[in-house]
Amino acid sequence: MPRIPVAVLGATGAVGQKLLAALASHPSFEVAQVVASAERIGRRLGSEIRWREAGTIPDQIADLVFTAAEPAAGVRLAFSALDAPIAREVEPRFAAAGVLVVSNASAFRMTEDVPLIIPEVNADHLALLATQRRRRGWTGGILTNPNCSTAVLATALAPLHAAFGVEQAVVATLQAASGAGYPGVSSLDLLDNVIPFIGGEEDKIETECARLLGRCEGRAIVPAPLTVAAMVHRVPVIDGHLVSASVRFRTAPSVDEATQALATFVGSEIVRALPSSPARPIEVEARPDRPQPRLDRDRGQGMTVTVGRLRPCPVHHLRFVAMGHNLVRGAAGAALQNGELALAAGEL
Amino acid sequence: MPRIPVAVLGATGAVGQKLLAALASHPSFEVAQVVASAERIGRRLGSEIRWREAGTIPDQIADLVFTAAEPAAGVRLAFSALDAPIAREVEPRFAAAGVLVVSNASAFRMTEDVPLIIPEVNADHLALLATQRRRRGWTGGILTNPNCSTAVLATALAPLHAAFGVEQAVVATLQAASGAGYPGVSSLDLLDNVIPFIGGEEDKIETECARLLGRCEGRAIVPAPLTVAAMVHRVPVIDGHLVSASVRFRTAPSVDEATQALATFVGSEIVRALPSSPARPIEVEARPDRPQPRLDRDRGQGMTVTVGRLRPCPVHHLRFVAMGHNLVRGAAGAALQNGELALAAGEL
Amino acid sequence: MPRIPVAVLGATGAVGQKLLAALASHPSFEVAQVVASAERIGRRLGSEIRWREAGTIPDQIADLVFTAAEPAAGVRLAFSALDAPIAREVEPRFAAAGVLVVSNASAFRMTEDVPLIIPEVNADHLALLATQRRRRGWTGGILTNPNCSTAVLATALAPLHAAFGVEQAVVATLQAASGAGYPGVSSLDLLDNVIPFIGGEEDKIETECARLLGRCEGRAIVPAPLTVAAMVHRVPVIDGHLVSASVRFRTAPSVDEATQALATFVGSEIVRALPSSPARPIEVEARPDRPQPRLDRDRGQGMTVTVGRLRPCPVHHLRFVAMGHNLVRGAAGAALQNGELALAAGEL
Amino acid sequence: MPRIPVAVLGATGAVGQKLLAALASHPSFEVAQVVASAERIGRRLGSEIRWREAGTIPDQIADLVFTAAEPAAGVRLAFSALDAPIAREVEPRFAAAGVLVVSNASAFRMTEDVPLIIPEVNADHLALLATQRRRRGWTGGILTNPNCSTAVLATALAPLHAAFGVEQAVVATLQAASGAGYPGVSSLDLLDNVIPFIGGEEDKIETECARLLGRCEGRAIVPAPLTVAAMVHRVPVIDGHLVSASVRFRTAPSVDEATQALATFVGSEIVRALPSSPARPIEVEARPDRPQPRLDRDRGQGMTVTVGRLRPCPVHHLRFVAMGHNLVRGAAGAALQNGELALAAGEL
Repeated sequence: MPRIPVAVLGATGAVGQKLLAALASHPSFEVAQVVASAERIGRRLGSEIRWREAGTIPDQIADLVFTAAEPAAGVRLAFSALDAPIAREVEPRFAAAGVLVVSNASAFRMTEDVPLIIPEVNADHLALLATQRRRRGWTGGILTNPNCSTAVLATALAPLHAAFGVEQAVVATLQAASGAGYPGVSSLDLLDNVIPFIGGEEDKIETECARLLGRCEGRAIVPAPLTVAAMVHRVPVIDGHLVSASVRFRTAPSVDEATQALATFVGSEIVRALPSSPARPIEVEARPDRPQPRLDRDRGQGMTVTVGRLRPCPVHHLRFVAMGHNLVRGAAGAALQNGELALAAGEL
Repeated sequence: MPRIPVAVLGATGAVGQKLLAALASHPSFEVAQVVASAERIGRRLGSEIRWREAGTIPDQIADLVFTAAEPAAGVRLAFSALDAPIAREVEPRFAAAGVLVVSNASAFRMTEDVPLIIPEVNADHLALLATQRRRRGWTGGILTNPNCSTAVLATALAPLHAAFGVEQAVVATLQAASGAGYPGVSSLDLLDNVIPFIGGEEDKIETECARLLGRCEGRAIVPAPLTVAAMVHRVPVIDGHLVSASVRFRTAPSVDEATQALATFVGSEIVRALPSSPARPIEVEARPDRPQPRLDRDRGQGMTVTVGRLRPCPVHHLRFVAMGHNLVRGAAGAALQNGELALAAGEL
Repeated sequence: MPRIPVAVLGATGAVGQKLLAALASHPSFEVAQVVASAERIGRRLGSEIRWREAGTIPDQIADLVFTAAEPAAGVRLAFSALDAPIAREVEPRFAAAGVLVVSNASAFRMTEDVPLIIPEVNADHLALLATQRRRRGWTGGILTNPNCSTAVLATALAPLHAAFGVEQAVVATLQAASGAGYPGVSSLDLLDNVIPFIGGEEDKIETECARLLGRCEGRAIVPAPLTVAAMVHRVPVIDGHLVSASVRFRTAPSVDEATQALATFVGSEIVRALPSSPARPIEVEARPDRPQPRLDRDRGQGMTVTVGRLRPCPVHHLRFVAMGHNLVRGAAGAALQNGELALAAGEL
Repeated sequence: MPRIPVAVLGATGAVGQKLLAALASHPSFEVAQVVASAERIGRRLGSEIRWREAGTIPDQIADLVFTAAEPAAGVRLAFSALDAPIAREVEPRFAAAGVLVVSNASAFRMTEDVPLIIPEVNADHLALLATQRRRRGWTGGILTNPNCSTAVLATALAPLHAAFGVEQAVVATLQAASGAGYPGVSSLDLLDNVIPFIGGEEDKIETECARLLGRCEGRAIVPAPLTVAAMVHRVPVIDGHLVSASVRFRTAPSVDEATQALATFVGSEIVRALPSSPARPIEVEARPDRPQPRLDRDRGQGMTVTVGRLRPCPVHHLRFVAMGHNLVRGAAGAALQNGELALAAGEL
């Protein structure tokens, strides 16, 4: 079966490169177009990109030539790793021109008629796409995945929320350097150091969680009635965001009940069949000092969230640690899986 | 004025070396005895110790000879950096022999008649020493400082508790490698990694805070009626423990009121005059990305706790970040300051 | 075809775990026996080992039970990751009992009748095994791979030596933490730091290179007539040893000639067919800032040495940088490939 | 005695901030002017600078206002931490206007009539200043200090060259992140990694050493007849450049003779009296694993070079490791000391 030609918007950054690397061997998609800023148009990707993934850039990718930000003929699907301000301008243009933009950008995540999706968590929110198209007169559309820390947290909260009703969560994140893109954080800021601040991050985590765990009611999402307080930190780690959470529930589970809910969590049948879906979206660790970013981030090809240290909390009900690969489950892999979901759901 | 001869128990570890380095130029104390485990007795300290402080070991320290764990003639004060199991055995022996043991060990911190003190926070708990001596028939005694993370947290909470009444705190720690001693954590566990577990640490933080902020009533401490939930993490940082806190108060302060309480916090007059007391026990940072361990840990010669990112909390009332030097404010400096307090209070 | 049962000696360390991980899915070998020190005999491997490889320990490995250091029935091949002093005692015992011990230990590398082999470089040295067996009356034998830094350096020097005759090399190594095993180097020694010393390492590099590049003449190896001076450093890197070299040749090559020799280097036909042999033992990098440990160590599943920065040297003839995975090309993978070579050569 | 007003050119970078911090408490100099690029003119330094030194910016520095690149009235001395291309344009303008520019920039280091000085090594090269002024008609002048790695290497080579005649040196550097300025190297390039390339660095080390160790003959420097080959590496270290050297001499010293020459090395009387001169420009370490950047970089307030691991070399005569603080001995402290030398020598 011929692979579907796709565009990559914002191909040169950390997330863009991860997307290109994954798409190079994807069963359903093939990169047909790479879009970059004006000064790169017409240039060969292989000459422009400072390849940060391991080894060398795949040949078939290296030979692509950057185009302007207009969909190429035949391209019906685009993956966007654009920065939010540019995404705000470019993504609607593609959507209007008939392209489904599957975006990692934060620009439209909280927009009323734009689905914000983690397939295992809320694939049904895809229904919003019909509203979006109708309302905006688009033949394409915009579909988003959450912020990288939110992706880890919301995946871990999803089965707990379904079973016990999350009411409050105080979470602390320990986020990897790659979450800031490349060059991102200076080595002088991160060697032998921690930065207890990431601009805009706490707000994203606090708002996106309620939307992801919310109910899709006809033309809108009713956010889940839960409050999240986030305290974010950048740590000297290459990849892998770790989230420690203290959670209050409507019905407090025991540690065993919570473990059970997490360990048996699976997506719907359609989601489980997607090429990027891991065997298990969540793996529960019994070892007391796990998960650890370096040892656990590549589980499920980076799509599995590892949860450990489930224990009671003296202030709320339960504490745990969740960890996932911020560039895969939290960005490129999340977008790819959303694109696969759209394909499987007949939205392309 | 001649300096008071002191013993150092457990001189070879990370905290012990920090103690030795500080005592080498201390105005009131002079190291007269170093105690080590059996196989080192009779050996020269300079030949036995693998000096981990900067530069070279001070000459007058290097020439000391390790003795057995019995107080030398003329020694009335000892600083202990022993591991808890050994402290449990050795410290009472010294106390019974007439030595005041100022201990960094966790062995007796929560013992009913043993003062657990941060001088700026609860110097009045020193009164417990009289009870301890009477009850145990000791002429010496045991006086302790808190766990390294607790030292940072409790210092930051103290003025807030005094003014607004802390009820609940959910805290996440990002702790430096030196907190585990030397050799402590393997580089293979910490490079490009985070370990979300430190044995016993969460319990220490949760119990010690209430004791430190409690009231000394005659012969016992009435713990402060507050609940702390701790989520601890080891991060690739040499020195400096960072604590992010979400706090609920009896009377919720505004950010400005909390800032004011923190920035104006000082110890009693007697405490302010101690050689190890910093000009300000707490400095409040307005820069949004501070405190950071590497840039702020040496404030006040490592005795100042830097607090930043004061902001409202959607779950509790207030969030902030506190950071201090774990080996100084959190260990060696804390013990030293406690020894100075005992001297100033006439307990020697 | 049934897999050949093998023993692993020293299974719990960093190299041992890498061996176990690789053997779990090896086409020809299957772990049938794991040997550990006395106190572990009879215990389940999965309960004893602190698994440091990514993810979780493979099930079929976890269920193995440690035995004493005597070959199990049916075991004709053993991989040894023992420390040198123990290897000195245990390996000959296995060899005498009919087992071919393929060892990563330094104990016998420079022993006259023990082959020291990198298959692409000097597979013909395997002939020494016959001498060894005859002389010692062994039906098994001992076969070794070089020190981890030597493995990288000698692989890079081999084609240059063959074509241009290496006379002198001054080399500086930047070695990863995993080279010291687990727990190995303390994080307090390696964070924000470099250690310019590794016990015994410079001597190993200097002596092993001449042996590896030497000629096998009947019953002995005539070392190559070259002099190596090594200056070693431990750096805050997890995996990947980098070697910078300044080399004098008998016949000085141009940069292009040297590049050509390196890029076209291949092992013999029999070696190329071994399961662990990478497509190319050496890859030459044109990017000016490569090789880098983190980005290049996994090339060829860790068996490829990447060489870059070929440039003239004002003191000698040529300078270059070589980098390879110390636990794979430099240890576990090297042993495995030697075991495969022995199998292919009919020595089992 | 009133302090001499000085200008700082390029105050905002890593070296500029180190200069400001040192000048804040300097006995002879006082910052009277800070020069920045056009868009900052008229703005307060405290508001513009992202202070990267520990703690907070000194108040008297924070209140300075950036001026254009013309000397302020009364300023006769300027310290320059400009980038080379800007230095090439601005420094001669200041020199022509009567200001002595003491520069850390590489722009004029190898210019025939510009002194390149490490005071302990070649203070007599200051005589070149007269030639420079005469030839160019300047009343001010330009005086430079070497590249940061060169400063460490040349200081260590100086006493050896004086006593034994250095002929060849093959050196490998392990350089700290701060050598690249701020933000400089991305954390994604340096965590768990080494970069074996720094643009232009090898050439600077190779050419500057011969000039520093050369003889000042009337109006020019006769370079020392020695050849240096450098192999440079960036490592995950904050501060402190380490240089491993293999050296051939005209008259080969024993390890003891070399140790003796290094340990007794002092500058001239005038140099020893300069405020920035350390008690000993070189300290020799007997501990086998020293010097280490983190533990030894602050010796002599960052102005002492620590040398260790003196041992014979199988290829050349001697190997050793030298380490010094790249921002102090290698940049800001070096410039400051040169300014002090000019003052003491009556050149202001």
